[in-house]
Amino acid sequence: MTESNNAELTCDAFLDGHVKAWQPRVGYRAATDPVFLAASIPARAGQSVLELGCGVGVASLCLNARVPGLALTGVEVQADYAALAQRNAAENKAPLSVTHADLRALPPGMRNQRFDHVMANPPYYAAHGPAAQDAGRDRALREDTPLADWLDIGLRRVRDGGYLTFIHLTERLPDLLAGLQGRASATVLPLAARAHRPAQRVIVQARKGARSPFKLLPPMIIHQGDHHPGDSDHFTQTVRAIMRDLGALDLTAMARG
Amino acid sequence: MTESNNAELTCDAFLDGHVKAWQPRVGYRAATDPVFLAASIPARAGQSVLELGCGVGVASLCLNARVPGLALTGVEVQADYAALAQRNAAENKAPLSVTHADLRALPPGMRNQRFDHVMANPPYYAAHGPAAQDAGRDRALREDTPLADWLDIGLRRVRDGGYLTFIHLTERLPDLLAGLQGRASATVLPLAARAHRPAQRVIVQARKGARSPFKLLPPMIIHQGDHHPGDSDHFTQTVRAIMRDLGALDLTAMARG
Repeated sequence: MTESNNAELTCDAFLDGHVKAWQPRVGYRAATDPVFLAASIPARAGQSVLELGCGVGVASLCLNARVPGLALTGVEVQADYAALAQRNAAENKAPLSVTHADLRALPPGMRNQRFDHVMANPPYYAAHGPAAQDAGRDRALREDTPLADWLDIGLRRVRDGGYLTFIHLTERLPDLLAGLQGRASATVLPLAARAHRPAQRVIVQARKGARSPFKLLPPMIIHQGDHHPGDSDHFTQTVRAIMRDLGALDLTAMARG
Repeated sequence: MTESNNAELTCDAFLDGHVKAWQPRVGYRAATDPVFLAASIPARAGQSVLELGCGVGVASLCLNARVPGLALTGVEVQADYAALAQRNAAENKAPLSVTHADLRALPPGMRNQRFDHVMANPPYYAAHGPAAQDAGRDRALREDTPLADWLDIGLRRVRDGGYLTFIHLTERLPDLLAGLQGRASATVLPLAARAHRPAQRVIVQARKGARSPFKLLPPMIIHQGDHHPGDSDHFTQTVRAIMRDLGALDLTAMARG
């Protein structure tokens, strides 16, 4: 799945080759989380989507592959990642516009805009955690901006009735819900590596200003079986439908049971 | 499962007859929630347990049936339910002492005590909801005391390193986690009526003062199959082990996966 043209970058395929993205060989590398995040966004052609902390753009590009005709905007604080996202947008012929900015200091034009959808895959580890060997990976993984700010900025940029969607470590679910409390009605989809194991990730989707009750969906199981069978990923049917057939993760349908 | 000696009370069997409890024929009636709550308490003989809002005492009596040798204390604001709980304790020969009090005004002796475990199955519906036809049921179901107070009082009555365990509607999970934030490390067990359906209840168990990460367990499924097959409950093996064999719901073991 990986081609490289030099020692520093690799070009990786996502969604069975529907998306190809250049990313640093050493550093933060997109894997399945941005793919699942993109699959969960209930966007329709013609709508606008803002991705906070877009990295090299994998989530936005995957969303574009499933739902053509969106207006996609990415914000990324690291200049080299932002440049790669813009390059990846061009090579994938995606209507993704990338801004190099700190999400706490968005350019005025963006601060006046409301989006139909805001999504994010924020850094997973606290800023005071151990530093990674690579500075770019370090910043992409470490939480320099508090999670509460991501939620607050996301909620301000989404229109009333629009959707804010985050993917994060399960252990941050209390913080995610605290940031949404009283401002949006949330639905949580746990992602578990295998059946009968605790979920390691959660997708939290919140509809701004809605008052429907909080919902906890059954976990999405990623791998078949109880353990890793050799080299094969053995993805479940749900995950194969997302990765190979550009399927959606429809949280609203799941909530109906 | 039900015997009655008069028009107002029924005597109901729980845990395959290991517990029998008198409760009002019309009004709030214990079903499976106190049974699951009791199964989840990681208590050992010799420890102390406080149940806030014990009703007629079903959760405490079920816990006593599984773990003999506990010192059990129940608090109930409704005098008639408290009296039934004391009667049920005597008839089940259970070491359960019941106090008729508002949990916000516990007697001084109790306010000086720390318990190894505090558990509760608080009222499920907001105080401003529609009134039930029966005043006792109404009060047992309606949230006159804010959930935040239940959590706060529970946390104050449990010793450092002890466990606070609540069962509640899933839609209150954000409020439950908000009340625990920074004070206890929580583990959540969702309870779903059937596989692939959203969970309707959650058991939230928090260890006071602990700093381990928040954990979300795989849901416990209550009924086999996709729909209700006629009259039979068709409980899953896990639920049968709890109800018929006095099994525990060991959340710590589940978190290891």
